[in-house]
Amino acid sequence: MALIVQKFGGTSVANTDRIKNVAARVSKYRKEGDQVVVVVSAMSGVTDNLIKLAKEIMPLPSEREMDMLLATGEQTTIALTAMALHSIGIQAVSLTGAQAGILTDGVHTKAKIQNITPKQVHSLLDSGQVVIVAGFQGQTPDGHITTLGRGGSDLTAIALAAALGADLCQIYTDVDGVYTADPRIVPSARKLKEISYDEMLELASLGAKVMQSRSVEFAKKFGVIFEVRSSLNDNSGTIVKEETASMEDVVIRGVSLDKNQAKVTIVGVPDKPGVAARVFNALADAAINVDMIVQNVSSNAGSPATDISFTVDKPDLLKASRVIEGLKAEIGYRESVADEKIGKLSIVGVGMRSHSGVAAKMFETLATEGVNIDMISTSEIKISVIIDIAKGEAAMRAVHKTFLG
Amino acid sequence: MALIVQKFGGTSVANTDRIKNVAARVSKYRKEGDQVVVVVSAMSGVTDNLIKLAKEIMPLPSEREMDMLLATGEQTTIALTAMALHSIGIQAVSLTGAQAGILTDGVHTKAKIQNITPKQVHSLLDSGQVVIVAGFQGQTPDGHITTLGRGGSDLTAIALAAALGADLCQIYTDVDGVYTADPRIVPSARKLKEISYDEMLELASLGAKVMQSRSVEFAKKFGVIFEVRSSLNDNSGTIVKEETASMEDVVIRGVSLDKNQAKVTIVGVPDKPGVAARVFNALADAAINVDMIVQNVSSNAGSPATDISFTVDKPDLLKASRVIEGLKAEIGYRESVADEKIGKLSIVGVGMRSHSGVAAKMFETLATEGVNIDMISTSEIKISVIIDIAKGEAAMRAVHKTFLG
Repeated sequence: MALIVQKFGGTSVANTDRIKNVAARVSKYRKEGDQVVVVVSAMSGVTDNLIKLAKEIMPLPSEREMDMLLATGEQTTIALTAMALHSIGIQAVSLTGAQAGILTDGVHTKAKIQNITPKQVHSLLDSGQVVIVAGFQGQTPDGHITTLGRGGSDLTAIALAAALGADLCQIYTDVDGVYTADPRIVPSARKLKEISYDEMLELASLGAKVMQSRSVEFAKKFGVIFEVRSSLNDNSGTIVKEETASMEDVVIRGVSLDKNQAKVTIVGVPDKPGVAARVFNALADAAINVDMIVQNVSSNAGSPATDISFTVDKPDLLKASRVIEGLKAEIGYRESVADEKIGKLSIVGVGMRSHSGVAAKMFETLATEGVNIDMISTSEIKISVIIDIAKGEAAMRAVHKTFLG
Repeated sequence: MALIVQKFGGTSVANTDRIKNVAARVSKYRKEGDQVVVVVSAMSGVTDNLIKLAKEIMPLPSEREMDMLLATGEQTTIALTAMALHSIGIQAVSLTGAQAGILTDGVHTKAKIQNITPKQVHSLLDSGQVVIVAGFQGQTPDGHITTLGRGGSDLTAIALAAALGADLCQIYTDVDGVYTADPRIVPSARKLKEISYDEMLELASLGAKVMQSRSVEFAKKFGVIFEVRSSLNDNSGTIVKEETASMEDVVIRGVSLDKNQAKVTIVGVPDKPGVAARVFNALADAAINVDMIVQNVSSNAGSPATDISFTVDKPDLLKASRVIEGLKAEIGYRESVADEKIGKLSIVGVGMRSHSGVAAKMFETLATEGVNIDMISTSEIKISVIIDIAKGEAAMRAVHKTFLG
């Protein structure tokens, strides 16, 4: 008998038939004697509809009231999921985030979980119930309803697994697990049996859309081992856990390509202290998230000047360009150039630490493919390069072949 | 400065434009310095959609989970109403039934309010907020979400008005108030300025659709004076309150016609003790609500037999007829006759107590109109007759003319 937390996202509960499928899957575990906690999201489309209603009333609604509004989405799903379990003879009871004891801070629409009191859930499990908990939501110590922001239901599942001391946490999604690369681009990509938290974090931040970083960070912090698997079949998925010695035998775990980045280059920046700080403070003040930053050494010895390049999410490019234009008089650079036609190609793997020459091998592969490298950024377990987006997919296949076959 | 509770039903908040209208109305009172508590129902159609989803999963869903599901309807409206007030510069905060301190018993889908802790609402009002409370819902002392059943939002408003010691409770609806008769049938019908709780209760139970009896009973019990008025205009409505001496000057307050009744007559029932009890116990066991009961004295002196007639809601007629057929062998009556083509015409007024000859005047009016009376039932402040439904509306106009002009 194990205690299992299972999380199902919006597409897995999109309509009453799919909710019945979820119930059937839960019942299989329950009938084998496992205690099951089910975390569900809002039915897909429901949250968007609620947001649309709010926007009809005002463009920027109060965040407290948005939370009050959006929390109804998951509350609807938990009730329907409990009914679906009842209809196949399984005892089940639904709980809102508040009822499940999920306490958060008061930062509405992106609250952080502060504490979970698992007493109520434990006692319901012990009385033979499947417990269905609304994902994405909690309440403040003062009793205000909060939501956890993007990826919030994954976070609910992982936090509950930690608080309950669950034996297993399963994140059901519409893919089979984590792959060495996107199989739509790299046909030879393979599903990974396991991956370390750090590798998963790098992949998440590099555009692999399986999970939000914050849930993985939370799992890492509390040592929650979880499995990413498909709600459409019974295949085993990918186990995400702490790094093991055997993981280092593999040089790289995966290859990712992020097409959602854009690059700004500021050319001819006077090479004096404080200029970079000025640039990135101005971008931060405009709430623009900067990813990679590269500053090239000046080549003009006469008047010391340098070039600064950085990447931002594509939707922020126009805003970023305007911020930089606004600094022209103050800083006195020559010109700024925006480029949307870039891709960020990355390789990730804890094995990099113990294998030398990985970067050289990647660059050599790209050179052979005739791919020029614009920017390079590395971490302990990751190498990212900015390249021409037109060559992105071919480059990805070549790099995958070099390292992963 | 007054403390006002305002309740808006499903049609008044049917879409975001109507919710903005509600906000505009609330702001008028707020700007005059009043403290305002707003109670809202689910947007019309929302509850039906949720019920449909539940029925897709199972025909008889758990009542606890139905409450979990349906409570989302009002929660959606309170958030949108708060936003609509914000959009016109009014401070407002939404509260679920639980957050507003509405404690109920654990009878899911038709819970009774046990207690209201108004501390949170008072403190929000004192800090200058309009407080928007989800109607129709509460929570048990154990923290389970409950709903109050039909007419539940009216009940929330009246119970809150009692708990808060409100100066005024306004029930906004799609009619202007309470009329002496349905104006669609009796063109000379007039809107009443005031009406006693008891008269309102009789009218509610007689098919006037303005409000459910239980809310009026609650208001009577706690002495909550409330006004029924339209959300479509600024006309003053009808004040419902304790009977006053001046109310007795008016012989009758109103005339109603209930077309939703049907009659069953059991002919030739052996006139011996216990038969009536057997009949009405069997109907009660089948959960059939019986309204009027008349037993005629037997005319056949040889074998003592009598006729028993009773009325039920039209949708229950078939079920009632089957129950009676099932008793035939046991009781040994001659035959049973069902009649759907009846109407119940009633006059209501506390003035009846101090004016004699009211019944005679009503029967005389009906005789002049050529209307035959099937059954008669009276209370202290009401006289009801069962007549041929085909003559119902003409009879109603004639009786209205006799008493109300």
